[in-house]
Amino acid sequence: MTIITPTEKTRVRRRPERAAYDLQTIHDILDEALVCHIGVATESGPRVIPTAIIRIGEHVYVHGSPNNQLLTALADGAPACITVTLVDSVVAGRSGFGMSMDYRSVMIFGTAEKIEDIDEKERLVAAFVEDIVPGHIVRPPKKKELAATVFLRFPISEASAKIRNHGVVDPEEDHALDVWAGVVPLKLVAGEPRNCADLKPGIPTPDYVMRYRRPSAK
Amino acid sequence: MTIITPTEKTRVRRRPERAAYDLQTIHDILDEALVCHIGVATESGPRVIPTAIIRIGEHVYVHGSPNNQLLTALADGAPACITVTLVDSVVAGRSGFGMSMDYRSVMIFGTAEKIEDIDEKERLVAAFVEDIVPGHIVRPPKKKELAATVFLRFPISEASAKIRNHGVVDPEEDHALDVWAGVVPLKLVAGEPRNCADLKPGIPTPDYVMRYRRPSAK
Repeated sequence: MTIITPTEKTRVRRRPERAAYDLQTIHDILDEALVCHIGVATESGPRVIPTAIIRIGEHVYVHGSPNNQLLTALADGAPACITVTLVDSVVAGRSGFGMSMDYRSVMIFGTAEKIEDIDEKERLVAAFVEDIVPGHIVRPPKKKELAATVFLRFPISEASAKIRNHGVVDPEEDHALDVWAGVVPLKLVAGEPRNCADLKPGIPTPDYVMRYRRPSAK
Repeated sequence: MTIITPTEKTRVRRRPERAAYDLQTIHDILDEALVCHIGVATESGPRVIPTAIIRIGEHVYVHGSPNNQLLTALADGAPACITVTLVDSVVAGRSGFGMSMDYRSVMIFGTAEKIEDIDEKERLVAAFVEDIVPGHIVRPPKKKELAATVFLRFPISEASAKIRNHGVVDPEEDHALDVWAGVVPLKLVAGEPRNCADLKPGIPTPDYVMRYRRPSAK
């Protein structure tokens, strides 16, 4: 098991018993997430944007338009905090302060490295496709599409996970109350796929779409 | 329809056709979300944490421990960016650049006002309970619990929404490809409720728990 040494920034101070610093736990949370929230300190204050994220090895990758100001700031070296959160359950305790959620989250601190190599960009496009809709095979990217897209990567080096998975934690004197307490798990479930309006006639909905499942629904 | 005037920070520059500045749209997104991501620029860089959020009128509220450093910084007036994101679908296009997600997000910029009034704190506790598990009735909070919790509110005044809801947008020359294109909706679905291990014998699982539904699953 590979453990990341916590830093001033990543050491979990509040409820340290919920912290995890092993790479496997961090990778699993990152792999399950579709989106992250990236925070940057801009001249006019903090800014937090949601964006798709993938992990390959010990890096996470995001991408977008060169006209995206936040991506440009990141590409120019602005320090980032990337947070990924998966809500697993709502937790109903016997008092207001017993209400909670079970969740898994990861925070990564670092600065971006811009991907310039065209072949690596092409591999990243394929990885984003596979992350969003596993099994989907698309036409290869064009050189101008790759050139018009910024890909950034961040090392998973200054990072930690925080996990709450213990359901209800009410003070003992509340246990005798006539109030239900427990958890309701939440799963991200796929609905009925919908064809694109201008889909070429005769193309069936692929099996990997019919069987689409996010990890929490497995 | 009440429209918020966009500012330098909230005007959506990238894909302005996805922007919404009317309060109803912003409120609806905030009301559906269980958690937000709050970003603060700290001395050691940006920091983004997930936390429960509720809306009452034209404010959003978060709460937590006075030992939480980020909440303390917010209470002391640190400017915040609060972002809420709901992922509605994965979008499969015919090329890597046609992959996307349909989503609804809100960004709120502002500084916190700390809630000191004990009666208002008590009302907020009840509102958080109702937001997390609608219908759940709990024992009233104790004075020391209310005193030991920081409640912050932010006005929904410098805010905007961004919505992508148009599924596949492939260039026309891709329409003839033999590649499936479409969307898979994602819904947050409740699983089987689980009683707390030390639940008082004889307490049935309430109807509002058996029928628990997040808005996306309705």
